[in-house]
Amino acid sequence: MMRRGFQAAATLSRLRALPGAPRILPILNPAAAFGSSIDSRISRFCPKKTDFKDYALPNASWCPDMLSLYQEFLEKTKTDGWIKLPSFASNREHIQGLKLPTGLAVTPDNSDCRIITRSLQVEGQGYEHAIFFNPSEKKSVCLFQPGPYLEGAPGFAHGGSLATMTDETFSKTAYLAGEGLFTLSLSIRFKNLIPVGSLAVLNVSVDKIEDQKLYMSCITQTRDQKTVYAKSSGVFLQLQLEQE
Amino acid sequence: MMRRGFQAAATLSRLRALPGAPRILPILNPAAAFGSSIDSRISRFCPKKTDFKDYALPNASWCPDMLSLYQEFLEKTKTDGWIKLPSFASNREHIQGLKLPTGLAVTPDNSDCRIITRSLQVEGQGYEHAIFFNPSEKKSVCLFQPGPYLEGAPGFAHGGSLATMTDETFSKTAYLAGEGLFTLSLSIRFKNLIPVGSLAVLNVSVDKIEDQKLYMSCITQTRDQKTVYAKSSGVFLQLQLEQE
Repeated sequence: MMRRGFQAAATLSRLRALPGAPRILPILNPAAAFGSSIDSRISRFCPKKTDFKDYALPNASWCPDMLSLYQEFLEKTKTDGWIKLPSFASNREHIQGLKLPTGLAVTPDNSDCRIITRSLQVEGQGYEHAIFFNPSEKKSVCLFQPGPYLEGAPGFAHGGSLATMTDETFSKTAYLAGEGLFTLSLSIRFKNLIPVGSLAVLNVSVDKIEDQKLYMSCITQTRDQKTVYAKSSGVFLQLQLEQE
Repeated sequence: MMRRGFQAAATLSRLRALPGAPRILPILNPAAAFGSSIDSRISRFCPKKTDFKDYALPNASWCPDMLSLYQEFLEKTKTDGWIKLPSFASNREHIQGLKLPTGLAVTPDNSDCRIITRSLQVEGQGYEHAIFFNPSEKKSVCLFQPGPYLEGAPGFAHGGSLATMTDETFSKTAYLAGEGLFTLSLSIRFKNLIPVGSLAVLNVSVDKIEDQKLYMSCITQTRDQKTVYAKSSGVFLQLQLEQE
């Protein structure tokens, strides 16, 4: 089960294009000129046919709010340019055919691994979620229903579960919108606790792309927008995934 | 498995003693004067005898670094005033005999729940961790070994797993040091990725207690301190747990 003896820690600072720091990556402006196109990333990320299981599909654990908002966004994929992102068991599947930039490669001693948001496999126990992405607006919406195995205070989702879901939605959005690959910073201001088993809606925007960084923000709230759960921001580093 | 129909979301802002906002709680300075004593909280939190299973104990998945640093801190509990915190399956067990402040109570429809950091039950798969607390210095050290079910980038821990472990270590420390009960904000600057299966050491301090808030900071690094994984900060709200 364990994985030891990795050859090197991956150094984000070493890869970062900071003033005065060694620059391993070329500086490129703006994001549109940075590597692959948004369309090619979406085509690769959302394959029409795949053998991998998509976990971002309704199941019996979803609360009525989650189910009906999912259906609403599914309609928007037909008319309003929204895209439903698939959610596989591991990022290894999401980036199949690509590899991480040099310096980030590791040699795991087995392949029994999972992305954190798909690690709890009993329906409803963990991170039930589905992400929709709007390429032209560089926005995403994540429908998130935290399960009883993500508790902090009894009956409520742990702050870490929302941090994780926010980082994950930022991350997928940053990659598709502008090859944002790694979280440089994440800040969350918690306003209300999310009851376990209820729906929280994460509204994510890419606010700015500058100096190889994507600046993201997120408001998490109830579906009716009457209760704000949290306000968050994040900065992601642009890096190109290389062909294998 | 699911939990629906909670009666109300818990509103942190409603409970918060902000300038101009309704004050439900009395304003108390300093932390020492706020409710129970640090000794009584420790006695309750670290029972000498309990039927609950403590998960913060070495198992076969722990890497040599994790195991030896654990032993080192265990020695410090005998001589240097450090305390090893037990880690139960749920915060319901940690706060047994106490209840959350009014307004935060929920009525779950079953009891199959877990704290997020003990949700993955196969040894080594998830959040292997042990927290040591030093009451006189108001500091904690968390030994954290992320498992392969907490992945983000292939081979590395998801940023959300470190956010969760940081929030959890802040949370336990804030409660014991000064009845800090809820995370108001959490910020993380990521410096390096943590390889799955390796040890990350979280060094947590309470920097200030002011206006019913605890200000916390954390440096996460390798055991030899040569690689910094992240620098974090958090603010926690002081609230008293009430006797049941």
